[in-house]
Amino acid sequence: MSTIGPEIERLIQLLAKLPGFGPRSARRAALALLKKREVLLEPLSAALRDAAQAIKTCEICGNLDTTSPCAICCDARRDAHVLCVVEDVADLWALERAGVFRGRYHVLGGALSALDGITPDRLNVASLLERAKGVDEIVIAVNATVEGQTTAHYLMDALAPSGAKITRLAHGVPVGGELDYLDEGTLSAAFKARRAL
Amino acid sequence: MSTIGPEIERLIQLLAKLPGFGPRSARRAALALLKKREVLLEPLSAALRDAAQAIKTCEICGNLDTTSPCAICCDARRDAHVLCVVEDVADLWALERAGVFRGRYHVLGGALSALDGITPDRLNVASLLERAKGVDEIVIAVNATVEGQTTAHYLMDALAPSGAKITRLAHGVPVGGELDYLDEGTLSAAFKARRAL
Repeated sequence: MSTIGPEIERLIQLLAKLPGFGPRSARRAALALLKKREVLLEPLSAALRDAAQAIKTCEICGNLDTTSPCAICCDARRDAHVLCVVEDVADLWALERAGVFRGRYHVLGGALSALDGITPDRLNVASLLERAKGVDEIVIAVNATVEGQTTAHYLMDALAPSGAKITRLAHGVPVGGELDYLDEGTLSAAFKARRAL
Repeated sequence: MSTIGPEIERLIQLLAKLPGFGPRSARRAALALLKKREVLLEPLSAALRDAAQAIKTCEICGNLDTTSPCAICCDARRDAHVLCVVEDVADLWALERAGVFRGRYHVLGGALSALDGITPDRLNVASLLERAKGVDEIVIAVNATVEGQTTAHYLMDALAPSGAKITRLAHGVPVGGELDYLDEGTLSAAFKARRAL
């Protein structure tokens, strides 16, 4: 592709590294950016520069925010006696969108994985054990994957001495989900955990 | 999502405007950018800034490049007597990747569409008619869509007085394609245009 200038080539190569983008969609995106210079390219360039300068990792919980400690850790209205442990900032965002949790978070930064060599010392576990002292409840909101469940078991043992109540998210039928399309594991979990109407 | 800072919100909103991205994938991309600050966020920010400053639209053919006229229009080794008319810069890139064409291009900037109000004066048609003088062949390489074919017919009439030979891309079975999966239109075109082995 010698006839595409190096500036465009470089832009395409970097866009192709974004999750969900491949070489073809990166080319389409680059072209859309170059065509919509004022409404897309320049604002995005500025937004990236601002984000690079402003966004920090919260020293307490591992969240991303413009301040450290982050807005959630600083918010006195949020219950400091309930911690919700998540793998990733994306999971924290998802729970915040659901608006169901009014305590504070702890971002592990991943899940245990023997295959990928992710041991407890690679995750924010030490700071969690420290924070667990004097907390009433710890909700382990990790993914329902093999790695997530391994992490949950490990944390349950590690957090036992803290004396806090350890809970996990319920398994069951997703709201709006059809039984016919559900896997046996979910269906069986939902059946066992059935509740009186 | 009040707990996500405005800088991250703005970044997600802008990423969601890229073709192929929705709100969910934009969030994933924003998070990937913030996590890989040195290898992704900062280089992409710089690449966008460079592209915004450097890339121009070629005054002759409508291609995007750091110079105007573009590298293809300036390349004396490329045949100035054969023009290839495409709808979009993406099509020009696709033909360049195929490496099959050694003439020069003309980017229309779209296709005729009564529905979207795209009339000939909204496209780079006037400059094409000007360039058509003294050219031997004009390959009309528009998309095989209704809009593309409408454009092709319009251009065939408009370019007739130039005296240049007007050609179009062949229809047929895509290389690697299976007959079973092809639509009747393509199959019928491929059959009619069959060639001796």
